[in-house]
Amino acid sequence: MLAEIITIGDEILIGQIVDTNSAWMATQLNLIGIRVKQVTSVSDDAGHIIEALQLAEKRADVILITGGLGPTKDDITKLTLAQYFNMGLKRDEATLEIIRQIFSKSNRPMIESNLRQADVPDGCTVILNKNGTAPCMWFQTERIVVSMPGVPFEMKYLMEEEILPRLKLAFNLPSIIHKTILTSNIGESFLAQEIEEIEDSLPDHIKLAYLPKLGQVRLRLSGSGTDETILQEELNHFSALIVHKINQYVVAEEDIALEQAVLKLMKERGLTLSTAESCTGGYIAQLITQHPGCSSVYQGGAVVYSNELKESILGVRHDTLESYGAVSEETVKEMAIGALQRFQTDIAVAVTGIAGPDGGTVDKPVGTVWIAAANKSKVITRLFKYGSKRTQNIERSASAALTMILHILKES
Amino acid sequence: MLAEIITIGDEILIGQIVDTNSAWMATQLNLIGIRVKQVTSVSDDAGHIIEALQLAEKRADVILITGGLGPTKDDITKLTLAQYFNMGLKRDEATLEIIRQIFSKSNRPMIESNLRQADVPDGCTVILNKNGTAPCMWFQTERIVVSMPGVPFEMKYLMEEEILPRLKLAFNLPSIIHKTILTSNIGESFLAQEIEEIEDSLPDHIKLAYLPKLGQVRLRLSGSGTDETILQEELNHFSALIVHKINQYVVAEEDIALEQAVLKLMKERGLTLSTAESCTGGYIAQLITQHPGCSSVYQGGAVVYSNELKESILGVRHDTLESYGAVSEETVKEMAIGALQRFQTDIAVAVTGIAGPDGGTVDKPVGTVWIAAANKSKVITRLFKYGSKRTQNIERSASAALTMILHILKES
Repeated sequence: MLAEIITIGDEILIGQIVDTNSAWMATQLNLIGIRVKQVTSVSDDAGHIIEALQLAEKRADVILITGGLGPTKDDITKLTLAQYFNMGLKRDEATLEIIRQIFSKSNRPMIESNLRQADVPDGCTVILNKNGTAPCMWFQTERIVVSMPGVPFEMKYLMEEEILPRLKLAFNLPSIIHKTILTSNIGESFLAQEIEEIEDSLPDHIKLAYLPKLGQVRLRLSGSGTDETILQEELNHFSALIVHKINQYVVAEEDIALEQAVLKLMKERGLTLSTAESCTGGYIAQLITQHPGCSSVYQGGAVVYSNELKESILGVRHDTLESYGAVSEETVKEMAIGALQRFQTDIAVAVTGIAGPDGGTVDKPVGTVWIAAANKSKVITRLFKYGSKRTQNIERSASAALTMILHILKES
Repeated sequence: MLAEIITIGDEILIGQIVDTNSAWMATQLNLIGIRVKQVTSVSDDAGHIIEALQLAEKRADVILITGGLGPTKDDITKLTLAQYFNMGLKRDEATLEIIRQIFSKSNRPMIESNLRQADVPDGCTVILNKNGTAPCMWFQTERIVVSMPGVPFEMKYLMEEEILPRLKLAFNLPSIIHKTILTSNIGESFLAQEIEEIEDSLPDHIKLAYLPKLGQVRLRLSGSGTDETILQEELNHFSALIVHKINQYVVAEEDIALEQAVLKLMKERGLTLSTAESCTGGYIAQLITQHPGCSSVYQGGAVVYSNELKESILGVRHDTLESYGAVSEETVKEMAIGALQRFQTDIAVAVTGIAGPDGGTVDKPVGTVWIAAANKSKVITRLFKYGSKRTQNIERSASAALTMILHILKES
């Protein structure tokens, strides 16, 4: 089963926005067993849209289109689709009602172009878009062609609630179940080596994918079949084998972000967390606080770039900084203990290093990073040696710091 | 002059990575006067790559290809291009030398597949890639076809240093000069109204583009012509008119990020900065510290989620929190003053608000944010009312906080 994605809109072709929709849609389609053959971004031009559609229909069973559904005159997707499928336009009353509600809520006056948002090709199935004024349109001929708005949260809601379930039904797709294991601080090839025997023993209907990201690898088992209960049992079996084998690297047995694994585990145990950051500059705090509900665990933290603030805010001793330097095991230990005490939390994590591109020395080159995690009874520390890229050094350090929180949680 | 971008690689089609390369390349191409007609992402499949190339050659003058140049057997771009252009392969000695150097630096052993990285189609022009083992290949027939590695920093370096200058020469493109004005905390339509007369008076060879981003709008004047000196004078003239008209909203007269504008101005004046963040949770700190060299201005900051830490770390009075609440003008003022004193800086900025999705009340709904900026002689505060989306609320608050730093800098 093959799909193609067509994104319509000049914003992408002039580089004004990065197309994040396609990757998200491709992930979701793959999860239900539909492979994406091609992603095509075209301009708001009728001839070009039609050419892209014709070619896509030759290669794929499903074509998902996003964008070009706004009220302004440069948005021509709907008219072009009517032309392509040789349909007239009709006004969809249910869509009109949603548009009226949206305008009455925001007290804005409706003009003719807003009303026209409710017009749809008369042979399509309208799927109501509760989050916006542009309806979603489903065309069923030999292929399935679906047109959705390009606004990410509108598209995502429509995909999850409407399109994906309908595609499963339309193609009578087998059940596909996934199980994700999140690992941290172990390379992809080393992981593969460790679980080689288990991987080789997987039956044909269960696949294992390695999804690497700076400092983390997600393992995803995907099984397809007709009996969901049996399938789930099989996945649980192989997942348990893998987790047993690489236990020390496993940070979560579900598809969540590393910091969410930390928050979840700490919440369960009723523990609080603080951060003391030098070279990561607030990146760890920001990763944690992007998640709603983090405040029951995360109390706060300090960003201490200067040595003076390492002393005054975190209580690092002047002597320690003088004798060992800001990037040292001794300093990072005192930063963590200082955060523990001054931010009054059960656990604290501290990072100090040289993110680069400048500031490196022969002894401590760019990429040298010390991390400490502390609870009330102990402090663990570790030295990392990363490369020369500032952004990567910051992201890798954050990933390692979060993993060290998990280590100290496991040990206590 | 039209270009197309073809990205090759299964990673994009399974949604594992977001294609950020294309938007960047499209921006760069537009800046030298080449419009992008289509962006196509295809799999590592020879037939599919050739089909995409054939179609692109019908529509565009230049085809830029990224990806599929790795040493593993799934990467087939190079062989496919040799087949497409009917060329044999030859080993490129200069590329081989670069590969040898990269391996000797990292002390890794070279295997046959690494040597093959130096093989190129014998009719192409090799452009050396100093940052990686895959060479860049330039094919000149009726069209120009360029194949580059997909690793973003390798691609960007090659584009900036080699491809863009060569394309300018190959097509004898007119000079295009740009001038960017960064504005903050003013809407696009309001801006357009303010500078309508200036925009209407622009000659045909000078265009004005509005590039909006949460809370910021970038105005870009682009002029094309043959005499760069005259063109630059014209752009300066119109830019000065615009800046004069909307002076209070202008934060930079060059194409830099908002936080870079803050850092630059403060560095020039020898001032230091600290941050006190509640609902932005370290996002402002992290924006600032992603930039190398920020440490001469930015000293550090506190993330204070809990009320206890607002008191103990920043010195907000217990009474203030009791009487007015954590999200109030009184609290944000004391947070800013506390940061100024405890982090010993010339300027401090503080943010407290309800990022959501929970925590709102009737009086203070989700999206309510107080921001303060303080220097040694005064504090300015402002109330913002954003929407219900946590991420957007955090990003907009950060943008507003940085703008308030600029305001207090302007006033002093």
